[in-house]
Amino acid sequence: MSSERLIYLPLGGSGEVGMNAYVYGYGPEGAERLVLVDLGVTFPDMDSTPGVDLILPDLTWLIERRDQLDGIIITHAHEDHVGALGHLWGKLRVPVYARQFTGRIARLKFEEHGHPVDQINIVAARPETVQIGPFKAQFVPISHSIPETSVMILDTPGGRVVHAADFKIDTDPVVGEAFDEDLYSAIGDEGVTALICDSTNVFVRHPGRSEGSLAEPITELVRGAKGMVVATTFASNVARLKTLAMAGQEAGRSVCLLGRAMQRMVRNAQETGVLKGFPATISAEEAADIPRENLMLLVTGSQGERRAASAQLSRGRYLGLELKPGDLFLFSSKTIPGNERGVLQIINAFSEMGVDVVDDSTTKYHVSGHANGPDLERFHALIRPDMILPNHGEHRMLRQHAKLAAEAGIATEVVTNGMMVELSGETPRVVEYVDAGRVYVDGAVQIGALDGVVRNRIRMALNGLVMVNLIVEDNAPLGDPWVEVMGLPDTGRSKAALAETMEDELSDFTERAGRKVMADDGKLEDGIRRIVRQVAMEEIGKKPEVIVVISRLA
Amino acid sequence: MSSERLIYLPLGGSGEVGMNAYVYGYGPEGAERLVLVDLGVTFPDMDSTPGVDLILPDLTWLIERRDQLDGIIITHAHEDHVGALGHLWGKLRVPVYARQFTGRIARLKFEEHGHPVDQINIVAARPETVQIGPFKAQFVPISHSIPETSVMILDTPGGRVVHAADFKIDTDPVVGEAFDEDLYSAIGDEGVTALICDSTNVFVRHPGRSEGSLAEPITELVRGAKGMVVATTFASNVARLKTLAMAGQEAGRSVCLLGRAMQRMVRNAQETGVLKGFPATISAEEAADIPRENLMLLVTGSQGERRAASAQLSRGRYLGLELKPGDLFLFSSKTIPGNERGVLQIINAFSEMGVDVVDDSTTKYHVSGHANGPDLERFHALIRPDMILPNHGEHRMLRQHAKLAAEAGIATEVVTNGMMVELSGETPRVVEYVDAGRVYVDGAVQIGALDGVVRNRIRMALNGLVMVNLIVEDNAPLGDPWVEVMGLPDTGRSKAALAETMEDELSDFTERAGRKVMADDGKLEDGIRRIVRQVAMEEIGKKPEVIVVISRLA
Repeated sequence: MSSERLIYLPLGGSGEVGMNAYVYGYGPEGAERLVLVDLGVTFPDMDSTPGVDLILPDLTWLIERRDQLDGIIITHAHEDHVGALGHLWGKLRVPVYARQFTGRIARLKFEEHGHPVDQINIVAARPETVQIGPFKAQFVPISHSIPETSVMILDTPGGRVVHAADFKIDTDPVVGEAFDEDLYSAIGDEGVTALICDSTNVFVRHPGRSEGSLAEPITELVRGAKGMVVATTFASNVARLKTLAMAGQEAGRSVCLLGRAMQRMVRNAQETGVLKGFPATISAEEAADIPRENLMLLVTGSQGERRAASAQLSRGRYLGLELKPGDLFLFSSKTIPGNERGVLQIINAFSEMGVDVVDDSTTKYHVSGHANGPDLERFHALIRPDMILPNHGEHRMLRQHAKLAAEAGIATEVVTNGMMVELSGETPRVVEYVDAGRVYVDGAVQIGALDGVVRNRIRMALNGLVMVNLIVEDNAPLGDPWVEVMGLPDTGRSKAALAETMEDELSDFTERAGRKVMADDGKLEDGIRRIVRQVAMEEIGKKPEVIVVISRLA
Repeated sequence: MSSERLIYLPLGGSGEVGMNAYVYGYGPEGAERLVLVDLGVTFPDMDSTPGVDLILPDLTWLIERRDQLDGIIITHAHEDHVGALGHLWGKLRVPVYARQFTGRIARLKFEEHGHPVDQINIVAARPETVQIGPFKAQFVPISHSIPETSVMILDTPGGRVVHAADFKIDTDPVVGEAFDEDLYSAIGDEGVTALICDSTNVFVRHPGRSEGSLAEPITELVRGAKGMVVATTFASNVARLKTLAMAGQEAGRSVCLLGRAMQRMVRNAQETGVLKGFPATISAEEAADIPRENLMLLVTGSQGERRAASAQLSRGRYLGLELKPGDLFLFSSKTIPGNERGVLQIINAFSEMGVDVVDDSTTKYHVSGHANGPDLERFHALIRPDMILPNHGEHRMLRQHAKLAAEAGIATEVVTNGMMVELSGETPRVVEYVDAGRVYVDGAVQIGALDGVVRNRIRMALNGLVMVNLIVEDNAPLGDPWVEVMGLPDTGRSKAALAETMEDELSDFTERAGRKVMADDGKLEDGIRRIVRQVAMEEIGKKPEVIVVISRLA
C-alpha cells in the first residue's frame, strides 16, 4: 500500500450555493502538496449579515499550510468562483491558473488589490497540460452561462479527479464551446477515480434547454414591442446579451448597454476573442436622442440590486433615460432565492409607471446555466467514475445528487465544507474534519463570522439601544444619570418620555445605592442594566441592548 | 342628480398582499356613513422592519371620522383580514359583524385586548341581512382556505357593492360550503354596481384545483412512507388538516397536532360545527410512546417561523419527539415570497438528519386558496358588474386584473391604498387621495412607520455605532473623551484598537479646540462626529452612526 494519498477538502460551496473553494492534495499523510480550485464569494443579506459587503470562505486551514500549496485554479469567472481571489490571494501568494477570459477577470481583481499580475498564468484548453505540484491539470471546455468555463482534470499517481464546477449540457451555447459528448466520453475512457460535480439544479426533473433556444422567443417578443424595450440579465452572461442584442438589431433597434459591470464583461469578452458578432452599441447620451420605439437597453440589476441600472430606472430618470407607459421590461433571468423582495419592488414600480414587465414566471425567456437532474445522470454515464462526490449546493441538493449516484451503483458520499475525504481508496473515506467557516468583508476590514460584531448589529436592529452615562465622584453620583435611546419609541405606556422615565428610575437607584455598589463598576453596571430593562419592559414591552458608561472623576 | 354618493377607499391591501382594510361610505359628500370591511395585519421582515412584531394599517383618516363609522365587517379569519382587530378596535369602538367561526376568532382577539366581546355580532349567511348604517349587508358563503369565508353584498340606495375578499372557485372544498355557481349568478341577476375583487393569483394562467383533489395523492404518499410522517400547512387551513389527518388514519397512523395555533384552530372549527369527522388526535406525550411508523404529526411552521414546531423539530428534539433517517416531512403549503430562507434552512436541517422532505416544488400536495386568472374571468361573468375594482394585491396584480376587466368590456380602475373612488357614477371616479400608511406594533407600543425609530435600527445594523462621552468643565475638557463601539470591528487597518485610535484623535481635537467651540454643544458635537467618521473611514472603511454625549459640570 502506498503511503501517498489523494485527498479532497471543500472549504466553501458544499452545503451552500456560492463561495466555492475546494482543496485537493496528494502526497504523504499530513504533508500532501495542495492545489486550490476556485476562490469565490457569497453575498450578505440583512437577515444574517447586515452591513457586510461580501462573504469569503475562511481559509485558516489552508493559510496555515501555505508552504504546501502549489497553485490556485479558477474554473470560470463567476463571482462565486473567482470573487474572493483579490481579497485572499495576499494570504496565499501562489501562482493562479486560468484560461484567457477568466484570467482577464482575475487580472482585474489583482489590479484592484495591488497584487502582482504576473502571478496569473493563462492556460490553453486540453490537450494542454500544466503541472501544478504533483497535479497534471487540464482545462476541459464545457458549456455554462459565462464564456470559457472549464471542467478540471487533475491527474496524480493516486488517480484522476474530474472536477466539474458549474456546467450545463448545451450543444448550442451561442457563445463559446458547445458541449462535446465525445470529448467527455473519451475522458471517461481514460479512467476516472473521482467525479466532483455541480449539484445546484439536481431537483429539476427535465433536461436543460439550450441557450440557442431563446433566440426565437426573444426576437419575437422584441419585434412585437411598441415602445422602448429594456432587458436585464446577469452581466456575465454574454451569450444572453448577444441573443438580446441580436433581437434588438433585428427589430431595427439601437442597442445600449447600461451598467459598468455589463460594459466591462462585453468588452473583456470581445477583447479576448470569445465574443464575436456582437452588434455595435450606443452610449446612454446617444440613446436619449433616439425614438424609444427604435431603442433597446440592456441593463444590469436582474437581482433587484438597489444601485444597479434596473433599480435606478424603476425609481425614475437614469442617465437621461426614463421608462414610460407602453414600454416593455424583460427579466431574462431567474430570481435567486432571497432576492424576491428587491425584484418585486422593481416590477411593481414599473407597473405603477404603466410599463409591461415580463418576468421569470414564464420560463420562455431564460434558461439555466446548470445541469438538471437528467443532465447529471447523462454526465455521470459519460465519465463513469469510481466515485461521485456532489459539490456546489445546499445539503438537500448534495444529498439528492448522492442518491442519483447511488442509484447508478457508483460509490458516493455527502461531503460538506470542512470534511476531508481520501479518494485513493476503493470508496470515498472521510479522514478528518477541519474548521471551515466564513469571513466577512466589512468596509476595509475582514472580520470573522463568529467575532460577534455582526451579532451585535442584529441585536441593535431587533432590540434597539439604550446608553446610560453616569459620572461618579468619590463613589457618589455627580449629577443625574443621562440616558440616550436609539431605535426605540420616544414614549411608552405612561406617555412620558422613555429616556426621562429611565433617568428618574436610575437617579433613585444611584441615590439609594450604597458606597459599596457605587465603588464597584460591575455591580453598578448590573444594577443600571437591570433598571433600564425593567423600565423598558414596563413602558414599551421590549428588552433593549444597554451600554453603560461610568466616568469616575479622580 | 342625487347629492348622496357611494364611495370606496382602501386603507390597506391594495398595492400589497396582506393588511386588508377597506372603507365604504354612503351619504352626502364628506358626511357619508361608513363601514369598514376587514382589519388585517401584515408581517415584518429584517430588511425593512427589524424588531417590529406586526404591521397594521394606519387608520388615522378613519379614526378622525369615527362618528361616521357604523360597523366593522370581517369576511374571514385569516390574520391579514382580522389580525389588527384587537390592536385597533379600541380606536374605533363600533360593532363588529362576522359569521360564527370568524366571530369566534375575533372574540379571542377581543379577549386578549380586553375589549367587550358583546360588540361582536354573529350574522348568518345570506339570505339573512344585517343593517349597518345605510348598508344592507349580506354574508355570502364562498370557498377559500379557511372555513366560512364570505363575499359581502353591501346594498345602498346608490347601488350594490359585491366585495369579494379572498376566495377561490372550489366545488369540493372538503370543509365548508362549496362554490355555488347558481347563487352567484342569481346575485348577478339582481344587478351589481361594483365588484371589488381579490387579485393575488391573477397571474396564474390555469384554473384553480379543488381542495378535494389532494386526498388521493396525499393518502398515497402517507401510505408509502416507512418511518414517521410529519406534515405542515397553515394552521387555519382546517380542510387541509382534515385531508392530512384522514390520510394518516387510513395508513393506520395515530395523528398528533403540534403547535398551539393549530390545536386552537381545529378546536374552534369543531366547536362551531364547521369541522366534522376529524380523526381523534393524541397528545405529544402519547405520541412519544407510539412506534414511529404508526405516527403522523401535523405541525405548525409551514413558513419557516423560527419558533413554530417545524423549526423546533429541525433543530432537534421537541416535546419528546425527534425526526430520524427515513422519516418523511411534507410541506403541504406554498412558501410565501420572502420566507424562502427560513423554509430552506429547515429543509436543509432535515436533509442533514436524513429525513426525506417533500416540498412545494411539486404542486402535487398543495392547492392555492385564491382564484386564478381564468377563475376571476369566470367570476366576473357570473356577477356581471358595471365596474370592477381589483383589490388585495401588489400593484402589478391589480394592474393585470384591471386588464382582464377591460378586456371583458367592464369599466375598471387601478385603485391603491388611500385612493377614494366614487362608485355611484357611470364609471369609477377617483375623488380624493387620503394619507394611508402603516403602523408598527413594537413590543407594547404602536409606532408610526415614518417616526424614524425603525430607520435608526436599520442604520445601526448597517453602519454600526460609536458613542462618544465627553465631560466638560468650565468650557474645557475634563479628562479624555471616552469611546464605546458596538457592531464594529475591534481593530482596523492600523491594527490598533479602533476605540483607542478615536479617543486619541478626539483628545487632540478637544485640547486644541478653542473655548468658543467648547462652549457650544452644537459645534463641539459636529467636530466630534467629523473626527469619529474620519477615523472610521481610514481605519475600517465605514461611516458609523455616532452618538455624542457631552456632560457639563457646573
